[in-house]
Amino acid sequence: MSFLNETHDPSLQSWIESANLPDNGFPVQNLPFGVFRPTGTTEGFRPCVGIGDKVLDLAALSSTNPFQAEAAEALAACMSTTLNRLMALTPAHWSALRLALSRALRKGSDLQKLIEPLLYNQASIDLGLPATISDYTDFYISIHHATAVGRQFRPDNPLLPNYKWIPIGYHGRASTIGVSGQTFPRPIGQTRPVTEGGQPGFGPSTRLDYELELGIFIGQGNEAGKRVPLRQAESCVFGFCVLNDWSARDLQAWEYQPLGPFLAKNFASTISPWVITLDALAPFRTAPARPTGDPQPLPYLDSVGNREYGAFEVELEVLLSTRLSREQEQAPFMLARSNFRDAYWTAAQLVAHHTVNGCSLRPGDLLGTGTLSGPHAGQEGSLLETTQGGKKPVQLPWGEERTFLQDHDEVTLKAFCRKPGYPMISLGACSGRVLPALIDDL
Amino acid sequence: MSFLNETHDPSLQSWIESANLPDNGFPVQNLPFGVFRPTGTTEGFRPCVGIGDKVLDLAALSSTNPFQAEAAEALAACMSTTLNRLMALTPAHWSALRLALSRALRKGSDLQKLIEPLLYNQASIDLGLPATISDYTDFYISIHHATAVGRQFRPDNPLLPNYKWIPIGYHGRASTIGVSGQTFPRPIGQTRPVTEGGQPGFGPSTRLDYELELGIFIGQGNEAGKRVPLRQAESCVFGFCVLNDWSARDLQAWEYQPLGPFLAKNFASTISPWVITLDALAPFRTAPARPTGDPQPLPYLDSVGNREYGAFEVELEVLLSTRLSREQEQAPFMLARSNFRDAYWTAAQLVAHHTVNGCSLRPGDLLGTGTLSGPHAGQEGSLLETTQGGKKPVQLPWGEERTFLQDHDEVTLKAFCRKPGYPMISLGACSGRVLPALIDDL
Repeated sequence: MSFLNETHDPSLQSWIESANLPDNGFPVQNLPFGVFRPTGTTEGFRPCVGIGDKVLDLAALSSTNPFQAEAAEALAACMSTTLNRLMALTPAHWSALRLALSRALRKGSDLQKLIEPLLYNQASIDLGLPATISDYTDFYISIHHATAVGRQFRPDNPLLPNYKWIPIGYHGRASTIGVSGQTFPRPIGQTRPVTEGGQPGFGPSTRLDYELELGIFIGQGNEAGKRVPLRQAESCVFGFCVLNDWSARDLQAWEYQPLGPFLAKNFASTISPWVITLDALAPFRTAPARPTGDPQPLPYLDSVGNREYGAFEVELEVLLSTRLSREQEQAPFMLARSNFRDAYWTAAQLVAHHTVNGCSLRPGDLLGTGTLSGPHAGQEGSLLETTQGGKKPVQLPWGEERTFLQDHDEVTLKAFCRKPGYPMISLGACSGRVLPALIDDL
Repeated sequence: MSFLNETHDPSLQSWIESANLPDNGFPVQNLPFGVFRPTGTTEGFRPCVGIGDKVLDLAALSSTNPFQAEAAEALAACMSTTLNRLMALTPAHWSALRLALSRALRKGSDLQKLIEPLLYNQASIDLGLPATISDYTDFYISIHHATAVGRQFRPDNPLLPNYKWIPIGYHGRASTIGVSGQTFPRPIGQTRPVTEGGQPGFGPSTRLDYELELGIFIGQGNEAGKRVPLRQAESCVFGFCVLNDWSARDLQAWEYQPLGPFLAKNFASTISPWVITLDALAPFRTAPARPTGDPQPLPYLDSVGNREYGAFEVELEVLLSTRLSREQEQAPFMLARSNFRDAYWTAAQLVAHHTVNGCSLRPGDLLGTGTLSGPHAGQEGSLLETTQGGKKPVQLPWGEERTFLQDHDEVTLKAFCRKPGYPMISLGACSGRVLPALIDDL
């Protein structure tokens, strides 16, 4: 066998036929976690696992808990409204539950009769925010993004001297993280004065942007004061989602000195509803992109294993629809494609760095990767890059153009893993729509 | 009557005699909220109100709820392990509970018999973190601090052009906020390379500092997308505490470009256990310090009421003890004194600014004021200012000196309100101690 363990056997098929369709994204090799409730109900959300075009209600399954040992403990932690209790367990628990679910959902399982009544069609459910997020940290791990943005401010010296040494990060806002489908009014705020020393502008942002990111959900955390060494860092990672870190560039330019972005970011951040475990992504491990000749990371950020397989191949896409394109029933336009493998720092390095000073992470905490731009044209993870700060509008096939986002624009981010001979693993999609600014009370 | 309402009558006396002692800080005119449990127990924390050298168990009182209407609803919200449920109510509820407690605790109350068994000596309890803090935002509202720090980096242009227009703020870390008595190992991290382009330093911070701040606990919050106008902003403020925003200056200098402070701050932040309501502080309202000739704030940050009484007179003190001073039984040394009235922005302006873009605040969220330095020598709210970046050590009366904090140093911040003819209102104290760095696993 060349696969990592039996859950990665590419020949596995599910007794749920939709899971076996090519490129459906939710084969029995994926098994992403989320929380759901039937559409139209006001029941509490409850944990589920996605399989084909269905979800399996894990809270219901836990009431008859057919699993053993750690898998049973992990399933019991799904008697909850969020994934936090499951996240707070250990990688051994997560892997045991994954193996038990894989066996239960593959062809020939003797649990099919028990499970069938606990399935819901994805078309008839709503998916919620997978976890209560206590703290949200956003990083900046694409050197291509950092360089492109830096070039707009400092053409001669785009990359700051700390970039190749420190995974730069800052704290974001947890209260406005929403799940795919989130809408928000265009943010209002101050903008840089037209003349130096003059009065700042004030009103709806005119440079509203998306940022193409992945989110990293922390599983087991660490006590304050106890750092997580790099070799253990992945044991703190429960899984990945897709993240749009909406950004108001005009607000950001005026407010961000000297303490960083604030109102330019904290009005909304949108994540996909599915959390894809490290186990599901294991077949897509690869070496990080740090070029030969760049400085070796300091020891706390460096390990042999991290150098060899610390990164993941995850394909990323940005799609845009507008009110006009939807009226005309045009397909969304693909603005950019990139790949997580091009990131400069790995998830493990983010955890090791975040905790090196004793900062504690808690189950359900979210780390954003920062905008995942690639090295080439067409791989820009934000309009700031695509349009070179608004100077080069993007032409949309239905006759409109964009420098930044207009009202009613909807941005969808997608992420998935593909390789020959293995079923496609979807990380889900993350959609959000800009509503007009609320200005009645101004 | 010249007082604001009957709870502010300076002649009120409590039947708890310690509350009537001069300058005890917890007279019946204060009535701060916290959470407590008897020392040595592992019971859950429960809400209490401080009075003299006692606390009144509000969870226990709520089980026989002797109050009416909104006061009864507010007391019922104290059947909890934190103050979040009480905070989520309205100013009318908070004021009604305050009035009911004032009447119950003042001399002649017919509730004395009911209440006496529910009192605990402050000496025999532990006080906990008053609320579950979902999001923590730190501001930068002392222009004296911003100018002094800016001068160290930009001698010719210390204050950035946005300062007088925007209450500069950024998101901090909620997971490492602890209550007075917090200890933490000296943080470890990267520091600026000695030679440009060289390898950064790595190890325990050698420029560890405190920051003298107040914390603002949010009561009722706002929905995402719905801003809070300035005239309503104080209705979102439940009360104040004392806050030490510990800072590692050497980590900060290397990491903070371009996204702001991160590991330099998020290893620990310490707050006092008491939350002092706006009602308790009302007799100490004053006009904000914005000098004549400075720009009028934009309309969303400006109101007549805010100009006249948006600020508060709160005296602040920083005290330092060291291992040596404690061994010698020396009194802690007062490093600085300042006053919250010198802040450039008010609590109401912080709330209005924080939400102008649609960002939602939630009950229990904490806003830090930023370091509250005053305009004069001796009013510096951090060692960075006192020692001019480590260049002028402070001489301690027991023969030591300090540029930055040493292991086992303990910093205590105190805040209180005083004026002639009115009992002193204490905001409590916030102590924290630096432990040696944990370096065994490096």
